Amino acid sequence: MRNAELKLTVPFHDVDSMHVVWHGHYAKYFELVRCLLLDDFDYNYDAMFESGFAWPVVDMRIKYIKPIKFNQKINIIATLTEWEYRLKIKYIIQDFSSNTTLTKGSTIQFAVCLQSNKMCFETPDVFRKKLGIA
Amino acid sequence: MRNAELKLTVPFHDVDSMHVVWHGHYAKYFELVRCLLLDDFDYNYDAMFESGFAWPVVDMRIKYIKPIKFNQKINIIATLTEWEYRLKIKYIIQDFSSNTTLTKGSTIQFAVCLQSNKMCFETPDVFRKKLGIA
Amino acid sequence: MRNAELKLTVPFHDVDSMHVVWHGHYAKYFELVRCLLLDDFDYNYDAMFESGFAWPVVDMRIKYIKPIKFNQKINIIATLTEWEYRLKIKYIIQDFSSNTTLTKGSTIQFAVCLQSNKMCFETPDVFRKKLGIA
Amino acid sequence: MRNAELKLTVPFHDVDSMHVVWHGHYAKYFELVRCLLLDDFDYNYDAMFESGFAWPVVDMRIKYIKPIKFNQKINIIATLTEWEYRLKIKYIIQDFSSNTTLTKGSTIQFAVCLQSNKMCFETPDVFRKKLGIA
Repeated sequence: MRNAELKLTVPFHDVDSMHVVWHGHYAKYFELVRCLLLDDFDYNYDAMFESGFAWPVVDMRIKYIKPIKFNQKINIIATLTEWEYRLKIKYIIQDFSSNTTLTKGSTIQFAVCLQSNKMCFETPDVFRKKLGIA
Repeated sequence: MRNAELKLTVPFHDVDSMHVVWHGHYAKYFELVRCLLLDDFDYNYDAMFESGFAWPVVDMRIKYIKPIKFNQKINIIATLTEWEYRLKIKYIIQDFSSNTTLTKGSTIQFAVCLQSNKMCFETPDVFRKKLGIA
Repeated sequence: MRNAELKLTVPFHDVDSMHVVWHGHYAKYFELVRCLLLDDFDYNYDAMFESGFAWPVVDMRIKYIKPIKFNQKINIIATLTEWEYRLKIKYIIQDFSSNTTLTKGSTIQFAVCLQSNKMCFETPDVFRKKLGIA
Repeated sequence: MRNAELKLTVPFHDVDSMHVVWHGHYAKYFELVRCLLLDDFDYNYDAMFESGFAWPVVDMRIKYIKPIKFNQKINIIATLTEWEYRLKIKYIIQDFSSNTTLTKGSTIQFAVCLQSNKMCFETPDVFRKKLGIA
């Protein structure tokens, strides 16, 4: 499976003075479900690090379709769409009860070798094995 | 002038366990300089609100070119590139001493009429006047 | 019941460059469980506001006993200890599997009447009823 | 000198839906001025780490006297009050133009030896020298 899903109730400290989630906090929602997705492959941040690689986010895009309110129950869905040369993950945030799409987004990550501090142009073998493609 | 610029020293609480600024915190840096830019037009959040409009961010894109470290001195530059139908602002983050480009990004904002709660398809007159185009 | 409890897995974005949760993020953990506690009385932020009162935090104390790590499963417990003149809530954070105490803390909140913008020196009737003491 | 001072304009992203700075963000304001204070002794986080010690915050107290608003200009003052066995720093936040006291607080930090991972019961010599007391 290349999907992960997380239900969340929006906390008070994420809401700004316009009574909606401040646009910068969405990166946290994406990360929570991205970590779940990577956990499924047994390749979360700790495992990445132990395998000798960091996977910095090099690109993030967020399209805010409808505002999200305090205490709203939302569903955050991550889908792994590219993995050969880089990790691309797409995100959708939905209202939990109506399934209305509230947000769309994506992140791109490259592997960086911790020893050489150089970017990898292919997904390292360690992760290819976890993905079941090597 | 349609530019604003801000010098910032990266605080400890923005740095993650990989010893670089966590990617989600860049939205704060963009906002700090966006507010300076809007202040120049005398149209910051308070003035927006008083004029009967909110300007939610509906799209944000960030390209992370080089990592940013704790205590690094950075320069954040905002340029207003569209204002007729929507506000588009482009951002560049540079290392303060070398001028190396570290990050590029953009945000798009639409005006929402607070009374009708409807999106405006043209920039409201109040802001056109402040921009000197009405 | 005057207790609430929440299980949480520590997210990556709460961890600082020393590989532990940054001390400022604990206020979020306290708030998450405080909101659960207030929900139990049907008196969360929205209900407070509708009843004509805000309940700002006027005092917060945190004692950091042991560090908390990325991905650690923790249990956050809130106990309402005072409610006659002010709300005092005590917090304990425990490691989920060992029950070791990691953190202790407290918050004090006063009611502020939204109409007069004045602090109340007694807990308003609306909340006394919800607490079952009026 | 055992004081540091910082002027700050409150950013939009620190303000909650009650139109005041969310109480958890004050830890950032304290940290900004604490880092300035430690910089004065040439003993900021990087220098601590290089000297073989971490200085985790083990206690934080905040007394919120008056609310702080978006765009308000504030003055944050840190004073080092204990340094023999532990670092105790006291904080005052004032309104910049009126000097009205808005917040009081304190943090306590202990030295932890990075090699043994043990807490030090005396301030290590490296910092005593920087303080001019050894």
